[in-house]
Amino acid sequence: MKTKKNVVIIGGGFGGLKAAKVLGAYPDLVNVTLIDRRNYHLFQPLLYQVATAALSPADIAAPIRALVSQFINVNVLLSDISIIDPQNKTIIGKELLLKYDYLILACGATHSYFGNDEWEEFAPGLKTLEMATEIRRRILMAFESAEKEIDPIIQKVWLTFVIVGGGPTGVELAGSISEIARLTLEADFRNINPVDSQIILIEAGERVLASFQDELSIAARIDLEKIGVTVLTKTMVTNIDGNGVKLKHSELESFIPSKTVIWAAGVKASPINLTLGTPLDKAGRLIVEANLSLPNHQDIFVVGDQAHFDLPTGLSLPGLASVAIQQGGQAAHNIILSICGIEMKKFHYFDKGQMATIGRKLAVMEFRGFKARGLFAWIAWLFVHIYYLIGFKNRFIVMFNWAWSYFTFGRGARLITKKDWRDS
Amino acid sequence: MKTKKNVVIIGGGFGGLKAAKVLGAYPDLVNVTLIDRRNYHLFQPLLYQVATAALSPADIAAPIRALVSQFINVNVLLSDISIIDPQNKTIIGKELLLKYDYLILACGATHSYFGNDEWEEFAPGLKTLEMATEIRRRILMAFESAEKEIDPIIQKVWLTFVIVGGGPTGVELAGSISEIARLTLEADFRNINPVDSQIILIEAGERVLASFQDELSIAARIDLEKIGVTVLTKTMVTNIDGNGVKLKHSELESFIPSKTVIWAAGVKASPINLTLGTPLDKAGRLIVEANLSLPNHQDIFVVGDQAHFDLPTGLSLPGLASVAIQQGGQAAHNIILSICGIEMKKFHYFDKGQMATIGRKLAVMEFRGFKARGLFAWIAWLFVHIYYLIGFKNRFIVMFNWAWSYFTFGRGARLITKKDWRDS
Repeated sequence: MKTKKNVVIIGGGFGGLKAAKVLGAYPDLVNVTLIDRRNYHLFQPLLYQVATAALSPADIAAPIRALVSQFINVNVLLSDISIIDPQNKTIIGKELLLKYDYLILACGATHSYFGNDEWEEFAPGLKTLEMATEIRRRILMAFESAEKEIDPIIQKVWLTFVIVGGGPTGVELAGSISEIARLTLEADFRNINPVDSQIILIEAGERVLASFQDELSIAARIDLEKIGVTVLTKTMVTNIDGNGVKLKHSELESFIPSKTVIWAAGVKASPINLTLGTPLDKAGRLIVEANLSLPNHQDIFVVGDQAHFDLPTGLSLPGLASVAIQQGGQAAHNIILSICGIEMKKFHYFDKGQMATIGRKLAVMEFRGFKARGLFAWIAWLFVHIYYLIGFKNRFIVMFNWAWSYFTFGRGARLITKKDWRDS
Repeated sequence: MKTKKNVVIIGGGFGGLKAAKVLGAYPDLVNVTLIDRRNYHLFQPLLYQVATAALSPADIAAPIRALVSQFINVNVLLSDISIIDPQNKTIIGKELLLKYDYLILACGATHSYFGNDEWEEFAPGLKTLEMATEIRRRILMAFESAEKEIDPIIQKVWLTFVIVGGGPTGVELAGSISEIARLTLEADFRNINPVDSQIILIEAGERVLASFQDELSIAARIDLEKIGVTVLTKTMVTNIDGNGVKLKHSELESFIPSKTVIWAAGVKASPINLTLGTPLDKAGRLIVEANLSLPNHQDIFVVGDQAHFDLPTGLSLPGLASVAIQQGGQAAHNIILSICGIEMKKFHYFDKGQMATIGRKLAVMEFRGFKARGLFAWIAWLFVHIYYLIGFKNRFIVMFNWAWSYFTFGRGARLITKKDWRDS
């Protein structure tokens, strides 16, 4: 009998989890160690719904251990990896030093302030559950502060919400905040009218949802404006501080006073990529071979948002869950092939299309040339997201919450929680 | 037409919320300002289920604004009150100065470390949602740390959980942690067996659930031991630090090495009570008259955990939700009576009994002489808690989560979240 190979997977997101599940079917060939700094798998496409009080953190997260507990050859470790040493086939983290025969990197990405990290304090991004609840706290507190304020000018500042970045996350956040103001909170205040809120979406490029076809991105803008979102395209953010956002539109400079700014713009890959010594793209992602391995490292695979995969068209694959899942599966299969001495396969992306929701009965989707918007796209969006959510229980609770919100206009998780457990 | 009176209610818990709802029915007589430092009403009897990963924070909380939005004469303010000035009928808080004609104090209580506040860091109590998620984090992290640990002695320290205080909260926490270890996590680890965990419940008095009849409190102890909880009665805690808990049992001193200690012992009333200059009991609660007003202040009422109400038997009323709700309602009615120039009524508590759950199909209850334990008491406990939960949506989701946990032995909210949103 051959000795079993040790496979280490770093990251329990879409890509890493899929790889672990595939490798879990080969207990005689591999021992798998799945490492994440969190104990849960997060369904990131719905993170904006936690930030906008529609869902609870636990509704879109599932413990990684429970997801792979049926695979006896998969071991889960909670740790933070700081160094990868490809020469010695070793990874090093806090309280951890592990040897691998094969390594799958699935660390995802974080957001980038393009060198202006001091903006983060005033404009948090949306990558983790903690960031989502912080954004929720800021949005809900803004209405509370406006209600207590006597000065109408400051009141207006509290009721101004700025979202930077017109990709799917920015569009979904802007639409949701508009719904909170217009529908959920409408009757709940005495001194302010939440309907008077200003929601401003800022995009540096020519159009929102730039990865979609022209027609859909124009439709999305029209829908956003219909529900009260101000859309500013070709507009650069030049500064963010506690008073608001400084903008530049061609040569024109302006300033939006706001206390609630959310960052949904750039992403950058994990800093661990720098420790590997192989080529990176501009966003810091590791450029991978056709079989998803690293150049000169046939034993290291990179999947999902951490990888830069070139398409024959010259473009690279976008940071979508479906890309990560397919790559995670392929990397795992290639490891099995390699162990069996069979040539590894090239990765081919099966295009599952893309979709974004804007508001009640408003969404856009495209799938291999097919385009849709409005009610049909919205219902398709609902079903696709319910379907891909992990675990029957989460699916059911999210579905129930959505149905509830749809009929009552309420939001289930309107909690302003404190930053520290010892705050009273 | 008479001028309307201003009623200020401090605290949106069971007592304050009930008072606001009663006064909301008299828009021609009173304007009500309901003040809380949180934006949500919390269903505290189920807080231990958030701490033990069974429920999400939003499942047991509902936004105060939404709960009273139908009462046009009720205004909700998010603020923290620091001073009450009964002479000038004024309350003072952060960014707030309010005059009242009538005041209802419903600030509840917090936990007391009996002068050892330095223990809090090592043994958080269970009063807020943040504390509950912090306790959840510590419990789940203890298993993760044990899994990573090689030294079997340190592993055992990580798998030792100490709960201080044998009241309903302590009993419910101990039972739940035992269920997590024995049922939920059983298959999820490779290096440890969670079933080996030690759960130790420490009570200074003669028996656990001391407010219940002897027979039930003995039954509760037997049930706890049956599910693997070690119960130490007549045992004093003399110190808590990062290494464990120091105990004293009659003259015998001992030490339990543990990294996870939870405080469920003493309660003390709000520090605002000291600013009023009226008599307090030993726990710092305001001693109220038979009509719930303060001595010499017929315009200030105190309800719930903040009040000390003497029964004709010489005992005082316990800190139960049903006491707070009934007192809140009575205080509100007395204000209406006073405005109409009618004599205020004395408060009579309608005893709704008490219950505590220990584990699956294990609970104790008593109601006006009637006693029950086991399956019947457990089902009664489920229904009573579902019934009193506020909002159909929360009821439904909690019921679904419980049914799910019952059949799958899973827990829906096994998230280890970070303390700061900027932690990665």
